[in-house]
Amino acid sequence: MVGRADARVRVAVVGTGLIGGSVLLRLRDTGLDVAGWDPDPATRRRAREQGILCPDVLEEAVAGRDVVFLCGPLPTLSETLTRVAAATEERCVLTDVGSTKAQVAAAATAQGLGRRFVPGHPMAGADRAGLASAEPALLDGAAWVLCPGPNGMAAFRQLAALVIDVFRARVVPMSAPEHDAVAALSSHVPHLLAGALAGAAQRSALRDAVLALAAGSFSDGTRVAGGPPRRTANMLLGNRDRVLTELAGVRAVLDELAEALRAGDAAALTSLLDEGRSARAALGERAFTTHQREFPAAADHAGELAYLRELGASGGHLTSCRVQGGAVTYTGHLPVPARLG
Amino acid sequence: MVGRADARVRVAVVGTGLIGGSVLLRLRDTGLDVAGWDPDPATRRRAREQGILCPDVLEEAVAGRDVVFLCGPLPTLSETLTRVAAATEERCVLTDVGSTKAQVAAAATAQGLGRRFVPGHPMAGADRAGLASAEPALLDGAAWVLCPGPNGMAAFRQLAALVIDVFRARVVPMSAPEHDAVAALSSHVPHLLAGALAGAAQRSALRDAVLALAAGSFSDGTRVAGGPPRRTANMLLGNRDRVLTELAGVRAVLDELAEALRAGDAAALTSLLDEGRSARAALGERAFTTHQREFPAAADHAGELAYLRELGASGGHLTSCRVQGGAVTYTGHLPVPARLG
Repeated sequence: MVGRADARVRVAVVGTGLIGGSVLLRLRDTGLDVAGWDPDPATRRRAREQGILCPDVLEEAVAGRDVVFLCGPLPTLSETLTRVAAATEERCVLTDVGSTKAQVAAAATAQGLGRRFVPGHPMAGADRAGLASAEPALLDGAAWVLCPGPNGMAAFRQLAALVIDVFRARVVPMSAPEHDAVAALSSHVPHLLAGALAGAAQRSALRDAVLALAAGSFSDGTRVAGGPPRRTANMLLGNRDRVLTELAGVRAVLDELAEALRAGDAAALTSLLDEGRSARAALGERAFTTHQREFPAAADHAGELAYLRELGASGGHLTSCRVQGGAVTYTGHLPVPARLG
Repeated sequence: MVGRADARVRVAVVGTGLIGGSVLLRLRDTGLDVAGWDPDPATRRRAREQGILCPDVLEEAVAGRDVVFLCGPLPTLSETLTRVAAATEERCVLTDVGSTKAQVAAAATAQGLGRRFVPGHPMAGADRAGLASAEPALLDGAAWVLCPGPNGMAAFRQLAALVIDVFRARVVPMSAPEHDAVAALSSHVPHLLAGALAGAAQRSALRDAVLALAAGSFSDGTRVAGGPPRRTANMLLGNRDRVLTELAGVRAVLDELAEALRAGDAAALTSLLDEGRSARAALGERAFTTHQREFPAAADHAGELAYLRELGASGGHLTSCRVQGGAVTYTGHLPVPARLG
C-alpha cells in the first residue's frame, strides 16, 4: 500500500521534534522518500547530519509531496497549514499529530482544505522533547486517531492505509470534537493531576523527604509532569472547555472519596475504589472481536462515515483499509462486550 | 552482619502475601533460617510447597526467633503484635511493613514493646497481591523506613543492619508521625488521585473510547487504582487526617491550575506546570553526599536519635550500620544541596 505503481510515496514532515522526528525516521526506515523541515536551524542541521533531506525553506521541503505530516507546536498549526497547502498540489494529503483536534479541523475547513486535510493524533509521547529524543519505534503499534470528514474520505483512506502499513497503527476514526472530549479525560486531565501532585510536593515543607519516599504511586502519577510546561499548557488551552468539564467529573469522584475517608466509612471507600479498579482492569484485559465492512468507494460516504465514527466512539479501531475494484474494505475491532448499533 | 557468631539468624514472617512473601523469599535465598505463617490455610500450603517451614499455629512459627516481620493487613497488626510478643523472647526484635506507622507505634508503646518493636515500611509494592505474586527481588534496593524510638535503639541498629545486608535497603530513619505525614503525599494521596481518575473514566459515557485512547498519562496515573480496594482503603483510613491535609494541598494547586486554564492565562499555566517539573526533575536527578557518623553504643542515645531523625527528614538515608568496640557507626547519604543543621 505504501508504494504507488510508478514510484515510492513521497512524504514530508514539518516540525521534526520528538513526534515529528520519530515519524520521519520510521517513514525513512520503511523505504519512503522523505524530507523534513523545522523552523530551528540547529534542528535542520542535526537532521542533515542523520542523512535526512532537510532544506532551509519550508516550501522546498513540501513541494511535490504526496503526504505531509504537520508536527509543530499546536499554536503554529493553522499558519503552517496555510503555507503548506499553498506550496503543495491538490492531490497532496495533509495531516497533523497535535493533541487537540477541533481547533485545527475548524481552521482547515475555513481554509477550504476539508478534502485533503485529515486531523490526526497518534497516542504516544514521552516526557522528553526534540529530535535528539526521537526514535523510529516511538509510534509503533500506537492508537492513532484520524478524523474523517464528509468530503475527505479519499484522503482518510489513503492516510489510514499509510499509518497502518508503516506504523502498524490501530487507527481510531473519530470526529474532531469527539476526539477532544475523549482526550480530555484520557490524556489532558491526567496532565493536570500530575502537575498538581508534583507542584504540591515542590511546595511542601517536607519536599526532600517526600521525594526520598516517592513510592511507585507518586513516581507514576507525576511522570508527565516532567514534560515541557509550555507544550502541556498549549495542549490544555487548546481543549480548555472540555478539560474543565472532565476535570469537574474527576473532582466529583475525588470529593466522594475524601468524604468517605473523612467519615471513616470503610465500606463506601472500598466501593468507590472498586469502581476505579473496574476501569483499570478493563484497560489491561480488553478483548476484541474482529469484523470486516465493505462500502462502495465512490458513494456519498454517509454510511461509511457513520460506521467509522461509531467504531471509534465504541472504543474500536481499524487495522486494515484497502480500496480495490470500486470498493473500500475495512478490518475493524470492537471491544467485548461493546456492540455497534 | 546477618549471622550470629554461633548460628544463622532465625527469622519469621507473619502474613505471607505480596510483601511478606517477598521478604521471606529473599531472607531464605540469603541463607537465613526462616519460617512463615499466614492465617489462610491455602497460603500456608502453597508456602510449604515452596519448601518453606510454615506451621499451622502462629506461635510455633515465631517461637525462638531472633527477628519477626509482621506483614499482615493494617487492621490486624495490633492484635498480631500482642500474640507474637507473647510467644517470643524479650531479645526478639519485632517489626512490621505497614504503609502507616503512627497507629501501630502507639499500639506497641501501649503494650510496653518500645524496646523491641521497630515500626518499618519498605517503599515498594505492586498492583498485585498474594504469595503467588511475591518475588525475592521486589524489595531489593528499596527505601525502607524504620522508626527508631528512644528506648529501642539497639533493636533499630540490629534491624537496620539486617535489611541493609539482605535487601541492600536504603534505610530512612524517621519518627512514626513524620513518616505518616510524608507518606500521605508520597504515596497515599496519589492513590486517591488514581482512584478518582479511574473512577471518573468508569462512570463516563465515553468510557470505552477513553480506554481505547488511554495515553501514557492515563495509564501511569491510574496504575495503583488496579490494587486491591480494601488494602488501599485500610491504608488511607490508617492515616486519615494527614491524607486529608495533604489532599487539600494538592487540591489548592489543582485549583490554581484550573483557574489559569479557565482564564486562558498561558503564562500562569506554564509557570504552575514548571513548579511541578522542578519536583519531578529532582526526583530523577538527585545527587547525594556521603558521610560517616559515630556514636557511643551505650550512651543515652539522644544525639544518635536526633541525627537519625534529621537525616530522614532531610531526604537522606543510611547504607551501613555497624556496632563495634563500644561504638555504632552509620554511613549516611544526604541529597544535595540539603544540609544537616
